[in-house]
Amino acid sequence: MSDILLQNAMVLNIDPDGQRASVLREHDVLIGGQRIEAVLPTGQTDSSHFRTVIDATDKLVMPGMINTHAHVPMVIFRGLAEDVTIDKWFNDFIWPLESNLQAEDVYWGMQLGLAEMIESGVTSVADHYFYMDEAAQAVEKAGTRGLLAWAIFGSQGTGMIDRTAEFVRKWQSSAEGRIRTWLAPHAPYTCDDDFLRASAEMARKLGVGIHIHVSEEMGQTTASLAKRGKTPIEVIRDAGILDVPTILAHVCGALPQDIELLAKVPTGIAHAPKTYLKLAMDIAPVLAFRAAGIPVGLATDGAVSNNTMNLWESLRLLAMMQKDRAKTPEVMPIPQALHIATRESARVFGLADDLGAVEPGYLADVIVVDLNGVHHQPLHSVTASLVYNVQPSDVQTVIVNGKVVMRDRVLLTLDKAEIIAQVRASMARLAQRQTDKRIQSYNP
Amino acid sequence: MSDILLQNAMVLNIDPDGQRASVLREHDVLIGGQRIEAVLPTGQTDSSHFRTVIDATDKLVMPGMINTHAHVPMVIFRGLAEDVTIDKWFNDFIWPLESNLQAEDVYWGMQLGLAEMIESGVTSVADHYFYMDEAAQAVEKAGTRGLLAWAIFGSQGTGMIDRTAEFVRKWQSSAEGRIRTWLAPHAPYTCDDDFLRASAEMARKLGVGIHIHVSEEMGQTTASLAKRGKTPIEVIRDAGILDVPTILAHVCGALPQDIELLAKVPTGIAHAPKTYLKLAMDIAPVLAFRAAGIPVGLATDGAVSNNTMNLWESLRLLAMMQKDRAKTPEVMPIPQALHIATRESARVFGLADDLGAVEPGYLADVIVVDLNGVHHQPLHSVTASLVYNVQPSDVQTVIVNGKVVMRDRVLLTLDKAEIIAQVRASMARLAQRQTDKRIQSYNP
Repeated sequence: MSDILLQNAMVLNIDPDGQRASVLREHDVLIGGQRIEAVLPTGQTDSSHFRTVIDATDKLVMPGMINTHAHVPMVIFRGLAEDVTIDKWFNDFIWPLESNLQAEDVYWGMQLGLAEMIESGVTSVADHYFYMDEAAQAVEKAGTRGLLAWAIFGSQGTGMIDRTAEFVRKWQSSAEGRIRTWLAPHAPYTCDDDFLRASAEMARKLGVGIHIHVSEEMGQTTASLAKRGKTPIEVIRDAGILDVPTILAHVCGALPQDIELLAKVPTGIAHAPKTYLKLAMDIAPVLAFRAAGIPVGLATDGAVSNNTMNLWESLRLLAMMQKDRAKTPEVMPIPQALHIATRESARVFGLADDLGAVEPGYLADVIVVDLNGVHHQPLHSVTASLVYNVQPSDVQTVIVNGKVVMRDRVLLTLDKAEIIAQVRASMARLAQRQTDKRIQSYNP
Repeated sequence: MSDILLQNAMVLNIDPDGQRASVLREHDVLIGGQRIEAVLPTGQTDSSHFRTVIDATDKLVMPGMINTHAHVPMVIFRGLAEDVTIDKWFNDFIWPLESNLQAEDVYWGMQLGLAEMIESGVTSVADHYFYMDEAAQAVEKAGTRGLLAWAIFGSQGTGMIDRTAEFVRKWQSSAEGRIRTWLAPHAPYTCDDDFLRASAEMARKLGVGIHIHVSEEMGQTTASLAKRGKTPIEVIRDAGILDVPTILAHVCGALPQDIELLAKVPTGIAHAPKTYLKLAMDIAPVLAFRAAGIPVGLATDGAVSNNTMNLWESLRLLAMMQKDRAKTPEVMPIPQALHIATRESARVFGLADDLGAVEPGYLADVIVVDLNGVHHQPLHSVTASLVYNVQPSDVQTVIVNGKVVMRDRVLLTLDKAEIIAQVRASMARLAQRQTDKRIQSYNP
């Protein structure tokens, strides 16, 4: 007796080098335990041997999407900081709003954001926020996969590194292996060199990586060069951060010397283009990163800049903005965009051999996407539809770690009505904005 | 006895000057015949006087969206021309594909695209394509509103102007006034001066406007300046086109002299940012158009560049790309983006006094949007959610000209299964691409 049979599906296949995307027709996907056992032409498999059989006729099976950088619980603040510069966004909105934050808000906010991600086919998230014990409890309950990191500031003192190391140890490999934990000094502009160095040392000691914001926009890079004579990337390199695996959020302000440097270290870049456009941060040079061999993964960032957790939108904007910046539609063609959305996001997430492909041996994090809606028809190109047409509501069924967490649009692990009621009850308190109570100052 | 009561809704209100967007809470919208009769606080209206009562508790009522430039039947080709330059897009894909086109394809393709638009809350479209008798039949059946124009090329000879004038006369004000008709010489690069002049004369004679592509990207402007010593906008001005009302599609290649010129004529610009990004055409200077008093409306363009008919995505990209180009998030704030999506799109569509607002006396083209999904919650800002969060699947109910055309996501006027079956049956024929059979050549 095996676990799940996805029957008679189209199956997305992205070549490891990202040069080709194709679709197997009329195939079954066999899942046993946490992993994909086989992908076989339909008709060869006896469905009576499976506990759960899902008819995927005319539907697409593809890897669950991986969000490589988010602050999921920030969904509780969405819509509260619009049309303002990045300085005001931090100093007058985000950091005053976050002074309202309580552990319980993170617990419910994380569930709310995970519900939104499941509904849109996102099965994994690299999250970077506060009160991460509560975030981990939410991931445990949701049944999804998380690479969780507790965001800390230099102003909190190195004791906070020990506190988050405790979090790392407590939750590492928990929830049937779905939860992994890293460290998260916030950014070089909010952590001094000693704090960064101590964080890197702790990461080495724990055998984990670091998830950090760096060179988010060019203003940070030029400010760092003016103040320190080095770029933010060089600052974190000199503090030892780049000696451990890292996820670097944004890097829109990369100079050629940064790209050269990053090509030699075990890093990955999280790309969240909706945030960049909404805050006019310019667009990260993804083509240059990829040309240098630096993996790039898709990300939403938090919902106060994004304003959703819709990774399909990130995928679409990634492709379109690279075309815009290169001034030719020939760059970032569909197979490369899907390569980033699947295998490369898995690589940034640190699970290149386990996620990002529907192949035997890979973890069974897969989604079933319905391409029968009028907005896909007639379906001349499955892969074009994935990049340019899919709406989150097309995602029918979501499987993580071999377990169904959404079936036919019904969430099986989370109680949506309760989550929304809990979050709504705190709305007025969360929306209070007192600039004398900001948790940090933005002045890179 | 009156017709429709939308009960206990939030109602979107955009000030005519576009400086402020607000939401009335707990209001009823009363519809009699083709028009909105009243918008009143809930509790004052006896629902037993209405034939149809729709509970809109916790939902938003807003103007139906207006697509100011599309080639709706091109949905039949979607996904067939990806990642290619604009030259190849025309010469190797679109114009060879369109040599496959038959009148029946337009009939079913138009219905398919209208179904997609209704499902995403689009109630009006300014369409610009071929075999427009069949397109008009589809609009008549769908129950939506159309400003239909038959696209013609100079190479077809002036007899084709007479043929499309016949179409204009036949369908003008038909389908209970839902259908209006204009002329549509394709573009100055496909129509010579005599043809443009004859089109303008015919439009004057018929008392209608002209829907035309012009200065789609800067390459066309510089080519025209090199060949003719004038910009494409000046070319159509000199042919008399700008003496009649016009919709100008795209105008990404506008020079300051063009903007000065357009500010003095009765024109409107259709803005389709997804096409511009996908084809790397640069972004039209919307802020400059608006500063000059030129109305700008939202558009999808055709589905071979877009690749959907999702006008919410156009709205979002409009706002984000203006921020990107201005290098500050403070421009194109939410009220202005919604102003373009409502009143200004109505102005470009030629019905500024009849569409684009939920107010007594306006035509009853309204949609009910459900903002209770997890991707909107908690709903700190209705207007932010409209610009940055809405998915087409949030649109619950669609009313056009006082008649319900979709209720609770069920289309009432179109047979989706039949439409898809009909279009699928022609897929193989439609996808044939013989470059020796292109209907035009692109060489601006």
